[in-house]
Amino acid sequence: MADEVILLNFWLSPYGMRVMIALEEKGIKYENREEDFNKKSPLLLQMNPVHKKIPVLIHNGKPICESLNAVEYIDEVWNDQSPLLPSDPYQRAHARFWANYVDTKLYEAATRFWKTEGEEKEAAKKELLESLKVLEEQVGNKPYFGGDNLGLVDVALVPLFFYFYTFSLYSNFIDESQYPKIIAWAKRCTQKETVSKCFPEEQKVRESVLQKRESLNKE
Amino acid sequence: MADEVILLNFWLSPYGMRVMIALEEKGIKYENREEDFNKKSPLLLQMNPVHKKIPVLIHNGKPICESLNAVEYIDEVWNDQSPLLPSDPYQRAHARFWANYVDTKLYEAATRFWKTEGEEKEAAKKELLESLKVLEEQVGNKPYFGGDNLGLVDVALVPLFFYFYTFSLYSNFIDESQYPKIIAWAKRCTQKETVSKCFPEEQKVRESVLQKRESLNKE
Repeated sequence: MADEVILLNFWLSPYGMRVMIALEEKGIKYENREEDFNKKSPLLLQMNPVHKKIPVLIHNGKPICESLNAVEYIDEVWNDQSPLLPSDPYQRAHARFWANYVDTKLYEAATRFWKTEGEEKEAAKKELLESLKVLEEQVGNKPYFGGDNLGLVDVALVPLFFYFYTFSLYSNFIDESQYPKIIAWAKRCTQKETVSKCFPEEQKVRESVLQKRESLNKE
Repeated sequence: MADEVILLNFWLSPYGMRVMIALEEKGIKYENREEDFNKKSPLLLQMNPVHKKIPVLIHNGKPICESLNAVEYIDEVWNDQSPLLPSDPYQRAHARFWANYVDTKLYEAATRFWKTEGEEKEAAKKELLESLKVLEEQVGNKPYFGGDNLGLVDVALVPLFFYFYTFSLYSNFIDESQYPKIIAWAKRCTQKETVSKCFPEEQKVRESVLQKRESLNKE
């Protein structure tokens, strides 16, 4: 029996993108179902009753919630190709540490940056750029955080980075000369079809970004 | 060559306790080194330069940071006894989901409860009790969250629960009749020597709790 794989998703969600990239890397066919935040589907409420949030991966009727959790699940179930985590326990712990760094330090600073103004915004920007600098050092001269191949940390970071980069087009947020390695890493990721096909259409994102900025300015 | 296992720790840290319980469950000999928050050791700064926080597990000279990460690492390296995660990928994802729930929903509500006053404190208390109710339903009639044996979620939750329970002695925070299953679960965990030996001395905790409450009252 063929696997039935459904992804409850929202086109702009960087977390949904993570699960999409993992599925694409593994070459798994899946059905993407768009959710409406204003009217969540009965399936979403049934599959993620605790958080009621996308993304939810549904594999043969069983839900897996939380994006990094779903990525690890995908890697464990479809373990015969494109490993996303190394097999060595120490290297696995290392990858999980950095994926967690993206989800905490980077995410918190980015959220504060977008939600605040004035001094608080400046402090969050400084913290965000410092976090990116730490990642710049971490990627070093490797093609990917996963080494020669895309791995958990790349999958965790690339959708968030896509947003920083898109937003920075309008605000000159990131001085590219200060982040050559991470910019080169992001471009390398984007050149992979398994990654780029998971990004939303640029025009739609620009409209959404502009709308978001306008609503922020009005607040 | 015997493994060298060192834990950089602080006696009151529930996160340090998680790593201790995992090591005890596996029967691993380790050296516990107390850290001073006011004067962090050069070893801590070297082993966790990103967060500069305990706990850090050092295995044969290599650091593993973040408590749940360390617990998963311990389970992967010493995989011949007392498994902390199931072998089935879906059940593993399920365990990671609930460990994450403890680290986010429960932890955030608990932190807000201790740091705020008035309406905010009441709202946090309500949220905390609701989160405990969700966990009460989740443990159901199983001995442990891990089923018949202690697992990742138990290890994640029991040190935090120990604190809620200790603090509630002074504030009648938890109405025990409303949480019979989780209270029974906590008692069951505490009866295990591998768990109870990781808890700090009750008298020291009481003094610390009273001191904490006094400093909160003064703020």
